[in-house]
Amino acid sequence: MSDSRPIGIFDSGVGGLTVLDAIRRELPGEDLVYLGDTARVPYGTRSARVVARYSWNNACFLRDQNIKLLVVACNTATAMALPLLHERLGLPVLGVIEPGVRMAVELIPEGPLAVIGTRGAMGGGAYNRVLEQVQPGRALTSIPCPLFVPLAEEGLTSGILAAEAVRLYLEPLRGHVRGVILGCTHYPLLKAEISSFLGPEVVLVDSSTAVAGETARLLARSGLAAGPGKGGERYFVTDAPGAFQVVGQRFLGRAIAGPELVDIQPLNYPGGES
Amino acid sequence: MSDSRPIGIFDSGVGGLTVLDAIRRELPGEDLVYLGDTARVPYGTRSARVVARYSWNNACFLRDQNIKLLVVACNTATAMALPLLHERLGLPVLGVIEPGVRMAVELIPEGPLAVIGTRGAMGGGAYNRVLEQVQPGRALTSIPCPLFVPLAEEGLTSGILAAEAVRLYLEPLRGHVRGVILGCTHYPLLKAEISSFLGPEVVLVDSSTAVAGETARLLARSGLAAGPGKGGERYFVTDAPGAFQVVGQRFLGRAIAGPELVDIQPLNYPGGES
Repeated sequence: MSDSRPIGIFDSGVGGLTVLDAIRRELPGEDLVYLGDTARVPYGTRSARVVARYSWNNACFLRDQNIKLLVVACNTATAMALPLLHERLGLPVLGVIEPGVRMAVELIPEGPLAVIGTRGAMGGGAYNRVLEQVQPGRALTSIPCPLFVPLAEEGLTSGILAAEAVRLYLEPLRGHVRGVILGCTHYPLLKAEISSFLGPEVVLVDSSTAVAGETARLLARSGLAAGPGKGGERYFVTDAPGAFQVVGQRFLGRAIAGPELVDIQPLNYPGGES
Repeated sequence: MSDSRPIGIFDSGVGGLTVLDAIRRELPGEDLVYLGDTARVPYGTRSARVVARYSWNNACFLRDQNIKLLVVACNTATAMALPLLHERLGLPVLGVIEPGVRMAVELIPEGPLAVIGTRGAMGGGAYNRVLEQVQPGRALTSIPCPLFVPLAEEGLTSGILAAEAVRLYLEPLRGHVRGVILGCTHYPLLKAEISSFLGPEVVLVDSSTAVAGETARLLARSGLAAGPGKGGERYFVTDAPGAFQVVGQRFLGRAIAGPELVDIQPLNYPGGES
């Protein structure tokens, strides 16, 4: 039994491409459809109310692409919209938080643990709730690092600005932590700088590989895996496909073929055909 | 003859409060209605297509508040949507670019001139087109400074991060420029850092006072000025009123009374009453 429908993946922008890349490595035969909501990026500074609404719009667009499984490749959207999507979408849905937390607990079974991410993903306590289920009583320090996303988007992932931003946010962790969950899909790009500041003995947990493994297990368990396939990829964005191609290449490490521009919200606008 | 209807002002977020503040000083009796599109901020990284659409939504919302005049207090929206708004809104509309350019030419009648702003505001050549009308043949260097908005929003307007970001973008101007137009309503917050890097002899043009003066002239010319009034203020945002209050206070220099949360786009969302 095999299911050749694609896997849907969305993020607020380019960050989720680190998750797509990990899924591609784990599942070379699956078709993947990616949506970057570049007309509304970033999500990390917005309220739960608005992020849930945008996430719902994204999920419905991908459902219309006939996907068999949705991966929410954005920590803020996972923190704020996963229950809604689980309940209402009518498709299996995977977020990035639980796989990341499980991986962290496996790699760092004891000692002080921290998670860093956007203000939105850190604010609602989603990481603490998941960790409490996975390893009850384990403490977790959460630190929002609002400048890391603009630095990664601008390609400023090394040099004095990156180093000083890392120092600004992570000084309280230095010498006091065994592992840090990179709780934002943009942060793997700053891994070298973070590691050089915290020291090589601190484990940095990049949840994208954990999400890819969980995706493979879920497909196998539910009989949803594709047969030997061509591993097709299709990219949609809600704004600025050119910038997505340029910046996305930094995240994916390879070229992105022709992202397609789509509107995923009802329009009310006299300015032409769009 | 007097017209007691309010003046409408919109920006993508908090930046336009620097313009509101200048208008308030110039016109203490006028009622002001401000809209910050915080559910879709920032505009500076988006395409003209999307910025024009968001600007239209904002303008229509304010028109429904019975305004007599619209001030577009965002350089990116001015660059990308002013012609559409002039043509279709059915109200007098003022942007921030032309008043800023006129003020720059007055203050710095000759010598090398530059403008700094978001990628969106710098990209389409709007500043060059306006300068060509105001002072034909005058040269202008445009430099996008994408990190300045996140730094200002985070309150990181002094210290090593601000200094290094200023150096990163403005090094090519140092010693080679007589005046710089601050072509983004966020940038006045970085004025001290920019001035200390470029030197006190370089004139920094903050267009907010020019916009306020132009607003007063337009009202007087059109018989739209209010009589002696109470100078009321009303604030609307499309997301996160709490954050708007906190960050907005840094821009306005005084407290903001109860920003109201509004939806200005048609919804398609099962997540509750919003």
